[in-house]
Parts: sequence; structure tokens; C-alpha cells
Amino acid sequence: MHHLWLMLLPFLGLVSVAPAEKGLEFPRYDGKDRVLDINDRNYRKAMNKYSMLCLLYHEPIPDSKELQKKHQMTEMVLELVAQVLEEKDIGFGMVDAKKDAKVAKKLGLDEVDSVYVFKEDRVIEFDGLLSANTMTEFLLDLLEDPVEVLDNALDELVVYEYIDDLVVYEVMNELVVFEYMNDLIVYEHINELVFLLQVAKQLTLKMNEVDFYEPFMEEPVTIPEKPHSEEELVAFITKHRRPTLRKLRAEDMFETWEDDIEGIHIVAFAEEEDPDGFEFLEILKEVARDNTHLPDLSIVWIDPDDFSLLIPYWEKTFKVDLFRPQIGVVNVTDADSVWMAMDDEEDLPTAQELEDWIEDVLSDEDRGQQRNTNEALPNTRHFEHTQMTLSTNFE
Amino acid sequence: MHHLWLMLLPFLGLVSVAPAEKGLEFPRYDGKDRVLDINDRNYRKAMNKYSMLCLLYHEPIPDSKELQKKHQMTEMVLELVAQVLEEKDIGFGMVDAKKDAKVAKKLGLDEVDSVYVFKEDRVIEFDGLLSANTMTEFLLDLLEDPVEVLDNALDELVVYEYIDDLVVYEVMNELVVFEYMNDLIVYEHINELVFLLQVAKQLTLKMNEVDFYEPFMEEPVTIPEKPHSEEELVAFITKHRRPTLRKLRAEDMFETWEDDIEGIHIVAFAEEEDPDGFEFLEILKEVARDNTHLPDLSIVWIDPDDFSLLIPYWEKTFKVDLFRPQIGVVNVTDADSVWMAMDDEEDLPTAQELEDWIEDVLSDEDRGQQRNTNEALPNTRHFEHTQMTLSTNFE
Repeated sequence: MHHLWLMLLPFLGLVSVAPAEKGLEFPRYDGKDRVLDINDRNYRKAMNKYSMLCLLYHEPIPDSKELQKKHQMTEMVLELVAQVLEEKDIGFGMVDAKKDAKVAKKLGLDEVDSVYVFKEDRVIEFDGLLSANTMTEFLLDLLEDPVEVLDNALDELVVYEYIDDLVVYEVMNELVVFEYMNDLIVYEHINELVFLLQVAKQLTLKMNEVDFYEPFMEEPVTIPEKPHSEEELVAFITKHRRPTLRKLRAEDMFETWEDDIEGIHIVAFAEEEDPDGFEFLEILKEVARDNTHLPDLSIVWIDPDDFSLLIPYWEKTFKVDLFRPQIGVVNVTDADSVWMAMDDEEDLPTAQELEDWIEDVLSDEDRGQQRNTNEALPNTRHFEHTQMTLSTNFE
Repeated sequence: MHHLWLMLLPFLGLVSVAPAEKGLEFPRYDGKDRVLDINDRNYRKAMNKYSMLCLLYHEPIPDSKELQKKHQMTEMVLELVAQVLEEKDIGFGMVDAKKDAKVAKKLGLDEVDSVYVFKEDRVIEFDGLLSANTMTEFLLDLLEDPVEVLDNALDELVVYEYIDDLVVYEVMNELVVFEYMNDLIVYEHINELVFLLQVAKQLTLKMNEVDFYEPFMEEPVTIPEKPHSEEELVAFITKHRRPTLRKLRAEDMFETWEDDIEGIHIVAFAEEEDPDGFEFLEILKEVARDNTHLPDLSIVWIDPDDFSLLIPYWEKTFKVDLFRPQIGVVNVTDADSVWMAMDDEEDLPTAQELEDWIEDVLSDEDRGQQRNTNEALPNTRHFEHTQMTLSTNFE
């Protein structure tokens, strides 16, 4: 793991403009090797040594110089994260899919280029952007207790504001469960459940009832047949994992993208800080709330502000202007796409028009028609003949 | 600008975990030189050629190998940004503080390690984190019209939601101006003003009146002596640029940090997605709203989620636990600091207790007492003898 050129890289995409003042110094890689080369002889020791072990399962180191460089950059990202988190008792290692096939099998690693985090008796897969920043945030989150206990010290107003904010703006892809007077702790993917205990009364929860809030939904679903075992809760949540509206986030962007529906994603671009984007997002939420009963409807909302480096790539690939809100259907096999026509910035669709458009495009999609060019599909929302309800196509 | 090793870097902190599916490909540096070496002979041509020119004003290239590497990494960040934005008609260049002193003087560049953006007849300084992501987002924002016109197509509800959101959650350090029926366009720093025209009636704005919303404030200040010239507006905004509560953001973090008050920052750490952090932020807003008349009060709010790589550094430097809300006073000369004691997570202070604590610490600070260790200053909020109002110390 010693490559001379690695030492040439004090920074990884981050260059601090040397501030005259103290308190904002960005870390630079100090050149020390912290990432372990995991093999059949040392993996047990590593597991026992750290409270969390973070393993990159990678392709065999290739012959091609360019692919080697890619591998080395990945390694550098892990090295910087390992350095930054040095005092947090987290181990880091690399597992070679060929050389270390035996240990990979033992540990249950199967997706090459994924990062697996071992914490206590659980394994959490990281399938997000491998940047030092995103990795660090993800690991720091894992160190926190996944169960949030709200108590009486919070006054009612704050609780309501917090919950509204949590569900509508912040939790995004995460699933929120409120439970009353029950200290059951359950999670498959850590960070996924939030239990509200003593304040549950204010939420009109009944004793031992678990309410499930899908992101952006105002009304919860009460999980049936209480009280629940850990297995039942996990089963219910697993079954309802794919929300009707989900935000693309750096920390699990590839996981989200791989979870397509028959090779297709409905993608909406909306910049939350822009008035048109904000309004369009409100319309999307309305469509999602009206159709949350449809298991096969899931809209991926992308805030372009979160992925600045991808904006020009998306604009070119999808032939859309991302300064304005957009909604389209993307084929993930070839990135072919069709987009709703919104000629005028002031001409945002109503929720009903948006539903009609989605329905029309997807039904054409179903019939296998006109899918090969950006132009071929009807891309205006003025389909006045459309009378079917959304559910006829989705169910 | 040709360095062999530059070619070795296909990534800059970003390694895409090769997705099996299309539509999420992160850009890699293609090795082509796009960043110009600006000098006395070519700067005019560059200015005329692009709609925006983005210049890094840097220290003379040093002899030390390590500092050379830092310089090269900065250059690489610019190269990747230039590649990603290739079709946006933005030029990129480097200006050497020694070799190109003459042209730097002509262009008015004075702060070494800053990036200056020339757009039409204005110069906008970038004093934020030099990462490819932050730079790209900043430049894409500059391409947009800084004046946002809300019109009748937005219904009243959306306008109110947007405005609340804009002012309270999103605009953060940016200054928001609402103006009724006036198409005056004025900005010193681009992105800084938002005009709402036809919807102004709903905001109880009078004809030609300009209301100024400081971030996190619910009540605007009406700019006196209407109607206003561009100069008057700019003068008013410049005078009121430092808000009572400001969020640290990657795009202008160094600018914010350098804007200390007598060598000191009041720093509050609060994670907005965490219930305690959310509640603490509400308390901070209350303190800010109650004291917005004090010109020398400015609290820097840091959401640790936005700066994951700095969390361990801050925890070590300031000796605080950033899993919990914190407020303290930091000396920017030596990063010495004192922090409010909040032993119990449920034991957040009231707005009044927080005001009292700030006042006590700053008045000790004024007397030059007990400033040399983290322990020496009173760091509990239980000063029941404190009866002075906050203004007595600040005015």
C-alpha cells in the first residue's frame, strides 16, 4: 500500500485557502498508512479491536494503469477518513475480491466497490458517494444512537415544529416511526427508525402502537397487529421501504438509483431554494400524498444544488435546463429519457396535470412504444383525452 | 502548467463506485489543460472572450516541494471545475502574485489565495472552500439572475410558504429585499437581493418601499428615505451586512470567519436534523430576534453535518462533544475558547439564560480576565446575580 505518488497528495479535493485566523483548518493527509490490508489471518483481530470496522470490498487490483489510479484514489479517500476519525475507534480495511475471496465469503461481502461497516452484530452497507466528506458524515452518524428519545423537556410547540420539519424537510429518505411507551429498539439499517416515546401522547398515538411516517407524508400508517416483535417491525418496514417520493442523497445515491422500477426512474429536478423549484416540490408532494397507496410509484427528487458537479452532465445527457424545474422518465439502461414540457417558467403544472402526464408516459412505456429517442414520446402535458386514474396503470 | 503527475489524477476526492446503471456518472478529470496562465499580454483577451472569468490569485510558486503540491492540487480543482463547466462560457486562469504583480494591480486583486470572478463590470470575490463541488455551485449560482421575480402565477399560500422558508431556513447569510412595483436591479454582491414585485401587496409593502429581511428575522426593516438610488440601497445593505445570526457555509466560510468582532466569534454548534439541535437553534433564533438591534452581536451557527471533515478537529481544538448542541466564545488568534456548560442533554438553556451567559462571558472578555485556558472562565449558565441587559455590554 505504499505508492510514492500517494505522498504527493496532501489534499483530496479540498484545498484550504490558508486562513489568517485559527479555528477552520481543514485536515490534510499526513502520509501515514492507517487502512489495513485485510486477509484471512488478520480479519478477526481487526473485528475485535475496533468498535466499528469499515471494509472496502474491491475488484482485484487491475493491470491497467488508469484503473490502478482509480483504485489508489479510493484508497486515499479511506486513508483521509481514517486519519480524520483516528480517535473514534473505527478500523478501516480493504478486501480484494480475488486475493481475499475466502474472507469476503466469510464476512458476507458480495457487492464489489461497496463499503461494509461492521458494528456489534450488524453489517451496514454504504452505497453512496465515496468522497471523504460523505463517508465521514455517514460514519459519524453510525456512531450515534439510532433511536431518538424525545421527552417532556421539549415543549409541545417545539415538538410539533420539529416533527413537521423532520418529516417534511429533513428526514427525506429515512423512515420515521413513532411509538408510545415502549423501549423496544429495532433497526435493520441503522439511522432508519426514530422512536418518540413520552411525547407520543401529543401525536395521538395509542399505547404500544407504532405509526409509520413515509417521507413527505403528513398522515402516518399505523402498523397493524400490535404489539410487535422486532421481526414484525423489520418485516413491515422492509416491505414499505420504497417511498412514493424520495430524495437523492450523496450517502445512498447508488442504492437509490439501483432501486429502479422495471428499468425506469421517474426523476424530478427541483431546487428547493428557488421559488419555482420550491413550488414544484410542493406539487410533487401533493402528487405523492394523493398516490401513496400505489406500490409501484416512486419519484426520485434531485435537488441540483446537492450535486453541482453532475449538473452539466445531466443537462447534456437528458437535454434539459436544470435552472428550471423538470420532471421526466429515465431509462437506467441507456439513460434515454422523456421530459414534461414546461415552456414558461410560470407555467408549472397542477398536481392533476402532473399525474396525468406520468400516467400517459408510463402507459406508452408499457406498450414499448416510442422509447428510443428523446423526441418520440408525447412530452406535453395537454392530454385532454386522458381519463384513466393513475392507479389503473400502476396496479 | 503541464505536470505529468496531474495526469495521474482522474479523480479529485470523488470516486464513483461504478454503477451498473446509467445516469449518475461523476466527472473525472480528462487531463486536458483549460486553466490559463494569465499575464499582462493575455488578460484582456480572456476578459473579452468569456461571459465570466474566474481568476485564482496565488502566492508565487514556492521552492518547497510540499507547498508546490498544495499549489498543484488547487490548480487541479480549478481544472476539474473548468472541465465540468466547459460549455457554460466561463474562463479560468491563475495570476501569480509576484510574476504577474502588474496585471494583479490592474485587476484590483489583493487577497492572495482568493478567487475573483469577473462578470460584466463587476468583480465577485470567492472566499469559500476551494473544493470542486463548492466552486461549481458558486459559479452556477452566478450564472443565474440574482433578482428573483415572483409573480401572480404563484398563489398566495405558496408565496407565504416560500418566503418563510426563504427567510427562515434557506437564505441564511444572504440578504433579502422585497420591493413593490419597481424594476430597479441593484446588487453589490450578486445573489444578495431578491425582489418580489407583484406579490409585494401580500407582504404589506408600500409602493417603492424596500423592506430588508435579515436572515432568521421575522420582521423586516424598512429602508428609510424612499425612493432609493442604487448607491443608497448598496450603502444601507453594506452597513447592515453582518447579521445577528449567520450560518457558516462552505461557499463563504473564510469570509465569515475573518469577519470576527474584536478577535472573537460567538460560535454555536447545532445539528438541525437532531431534535436537541433543532430546539437549540430555535432558542438561538429567539436570542437573535430579541437582540437584532445590537450591532456588535453576531452568532456564527455551524451545523456540524455541513463540515463532517472538521468535526474531529473542532472537538479536539475546542474540547467539546459535537453530538450535542454547544455554544461558546472562540478567540480567532489562538483558537482558545470557553463553552457553556450543558451537562444534561435535556438541559438546554432558555433564551434568557443564553443571553445572560453570552453577556457574562463577553464582559469578562472585555476586562481581559481569565482568557488563557478553557477552564478559567465561568462556563456555567447559573449566574443568578446577572441583572444587566445584553445591550449594556454591546453598546
